[in-house]
Amino acid sequence: MTHTTLTIRTGAHTELNDISSEVANAVRGSGVQEGRCSVYIPHTTCGVTINENADPSVKKDILKELNKVIPLDDGYSHMEGNSAAHIKSSLMGFSVTIPVSQGRMMLGTWQGIYLCEFDGPRNRKAIVSVGD
Amino acid sequence: MTHTTLTIRTGAHTELNDISSEVANAVRGSGVQEGRCSVYIPHTTCGVTINENADPSVKKDILKELNKVIPLDDGYSHMEGNSAAHIKSSLMGFSVTIPVSQGRMMLGTWQGIYLCEFDGPRNRKAIVSVGD
Amino acid sequence: MTHTTLTIRTGAHTELNDISSEVANAVRGSGVQEGRCSVYIPHTTCGVTINENADPSVKKDILKELNKVIPLDDGYSHMEGNSAAHIKSSLMGFSVTIPVSQGRMMLGTWQGIYLCEFDGPRNRKAIVSVGD
Repeated sequence: MTHTTLTIRTGAHTELNDISSEVANAVRGSGVQEGRCSVYIPHTTCGVTINENADPSVKKDILKELNKVIPLDDGYSHMEGNSAAHIKSSLMGFSVTIPVSQGRMMLGTWQGIYLCEFDGPRNRKAIVSVGD
Repeated sequence: MTHTTLTIRTGAHTELNDISSEVANAVRGSGVQEGRCSVYIPHTTCGVTINENADPSVKKDILKELNKVIPLDDGYSHMEGNSAAHIKSSLMGFSVTIPVSQGRMMLGTWQGIYLCEFDGPRNRKAIVSVGD
Repeated sequence: MTHTTLTIRTGAHTELNDISSEVANAVRGSGVQEGRCSVYIPHTTCGVTINENADPSVKKDILKELNKVIPLDDGYSHMEGNSAAHIKSSLMGFSVTIPVSQGRMMLGTWQGIYLCEFDGPRNRKAIVSVGD
């Protein structure tokens, strides 16, 4: 089992930040041939998801629709003013587990791995754990 | 670690397709007694979830409510016209990890594993990874 | 691989029940130093998420906003009257996988692990699986 901590500088208040190549590097570095790779986000206003890596308008639609469903300002109690970010992070989730075969993640053709920034820009971490 | 790729033919534009018995077969085939089973979806308009396996109206309510929250047509930018499917897939998620004991998944009594089709009908895959 | 089944008595119809210390105990008990911990919920009206462990108003905002997006009563077909609980559970998810290093979960500073009760109060279970 190897854990690799990625450091990501996000560039906007909300964004889907493609970390696929960094995760792939961590998988390669682990030397694991047949196993599983888990990506974990150690934050509470930032999540992780998989989605399309081709047309950037998909990312735009995801962020816009999430903002419509969970408005940034909606009479929340939390005084820090970032409750929407907490809620959207729980909706996207904090971990995803991807199969590894022949030393590579079995991602679908159109899949990218995205850190979901909902309260940036900030320095964020993602922990990539690879094992048998 | 064994990976088994299931092939599923979905039958509607949106549906929850019960893959519990196919996943159980893959767990049995792996020979693993104590471990974990991860189900991974290598698509971007299709996810995976767990939910009730008894009353089919639960599946109907889930799909209908998701369509209400994330409308099929909502001024999306993505030209392919399936942005709602991308968003709903991220909401359901692309992986789930289930404990395996005595050679069987520790599913709750009422739990089934569902491939969530949001842009079908299509041929879909689900990868079942079972290991210690 | 060790599986530990936690038993949780929830105290309200909807609540985020902090199970962080019980999960940490199970990790400690497993003796695993470097590995992964998966938390799995064997129910269909109750999920699991990670979120802030400091200001309790975050939990309140999450529950309130989920109830706004997925109303308790919304013309559902399921006769038991708890469709909203089924839907919210799928949105939160039924498993989360957390890295373990030096015998401890690599949780972020502000992260707690929450069983998400959406149809309580009830006796609930969470299965903690820890392995290399």
